Amino acid sequence: MRAARAGLALAAALALALALGAWRRRRRRPVREVLFFPSLPSCTEALLAEAAEPGAAALPCPCPLPRGDCSFSRLLRCLLSARRSLEICLFAFSSPQLGRAVRLLHRRGVRVRVVTDAQYMGLRGSQIGLLRHAGIQVRHDQESGFMHHKFAIVDRRMLITGSLNWTTQAIQNNRENVLVVEDAEYVKPFLDEFEKIWEEYNPSNYRFF
Amino acid sequence: MRAARAGLALAAALALALALGAWRRRRRRPVREVLFFPSLPSCTEALLAEAAEPGAAALPCPCPLPRGDCSFSRLLRCLLSARRSLEICLFAFSSPQLGRAVRLLHRRGVRVRVVTDAQYMGLRGSQIGLLRHAGIQVRHDQESGFMHHKFAIVDRRMLITGSLNWTTQAIQNNRENVLVVEDAEYVKPFLDEFEKIWEEYNPSNYRFF
Repeated sequence: MRAARAGLALAAALALALALGAWRRRRRRPVREVLFFPSLPSCTEALLAEAAEPGAAALPCPCPLPRGDCSFSRLLRCLLSARRSLEICLFAFSSPQLGRAVRLLHRRGVRVRVVTDAQYMGLRGSQIGLLRHAGIQVRHDQESGFMHHKFAIVDRRMLITGSLNWTTQAIQNNRENVLVVEDAEYVKPFLDEFEKIWEEYNPSNYRFF
Repeated sequence: MRAARAGLALAAALALALALGAWRRRRRRPVREVLFFPSLPSCTEALLAEAAEPGAAALPCPCPLPRGDCSFSRLLRCLLSARRSLEICLFAFSSPQLGRAVRLLHRRGVRVRVVTDAQYMGLRGSQIGLLRHAGIQVRHDQESGFMHHKFAIVDRRMLITGSLNWTTQAIQNNRENVLVVEDAEYVKPFLDEFEKIWEEYNPSNYRFF
């Protein structure tokens, strides 16, 4: 009888701790981060290898770049936190590391969708061909204006947006900003904008002439 | 005696109402707005005329554009709300209406400072020459990378940032976004970034060769 009572008390305490944990996770403060570029140069090999095969011992990279924290590694980390979905809406996408990260997420089962600008996607160094080759869905505009957005949405929860195109030039040489935002008031309109553009750029609407 | 007491009570009530008003103003929810472009075309004449001479009867504009609310008029309204200071950090600035708004704020006594990109400021249609001619301080980079930011800060309180360069092409033809943000966690880093760039681009650092 006493043992049963103790067991009940333990189960109740456990349930309470679990509920408290879930409540705390729900209540955690939204991420609010501002990243400025140019970023310090850094080696992202370990970060990408760990994301590709969590827990595996990464081969030490022979490159001479420092391994420290910087704007670029923080951006990469936000992106690699995706577990379910990733919407990308980018004017220019030619960074090999960011391209590798996106292909890696696709392989990991994340639903990746990419919208880009028709006039920039075919330029030398563009990652768009590699993304398509990996089986990732890409749609583009057919307009005279530019598809000039530079945003991504991770797990319909985290918005990454700013002035930064995902190019090595922008990351290493330009003055740029990126906001990482989890406030629903900002994320929701960007999600709606993505879905609107995604439908407008449906290939069945492309004109071939 | 009774009159003095009534007077005291009135003064106390007045002080309370004033304090409550100040508290409410401080406590009002921060602005959180997302604007998407291209904007619907609209006539901004009445908005600019009212800002130039508040309360004066504006001459009706003969242009056929609609007068309705749109992303561009909302952006213009945010900018025109400046009372004390305006920091602008822009890759490309050629919109005549936004140029007029900034000159108008400068005439109204707002402290305006502009940072821009050296390679873009001299292009046809740039507003930078007109701003300088009006006596507004402008500084630019001397770097190989672009000064690619696109943000403004109103009264050290409201951040306007996104993918939008202040050009007619971007406003009327491109897919663009602008966030209007009053959360200090976002505004403060942008203010610091502006002050840092402003000092780095001090003309005493320019090299003439």
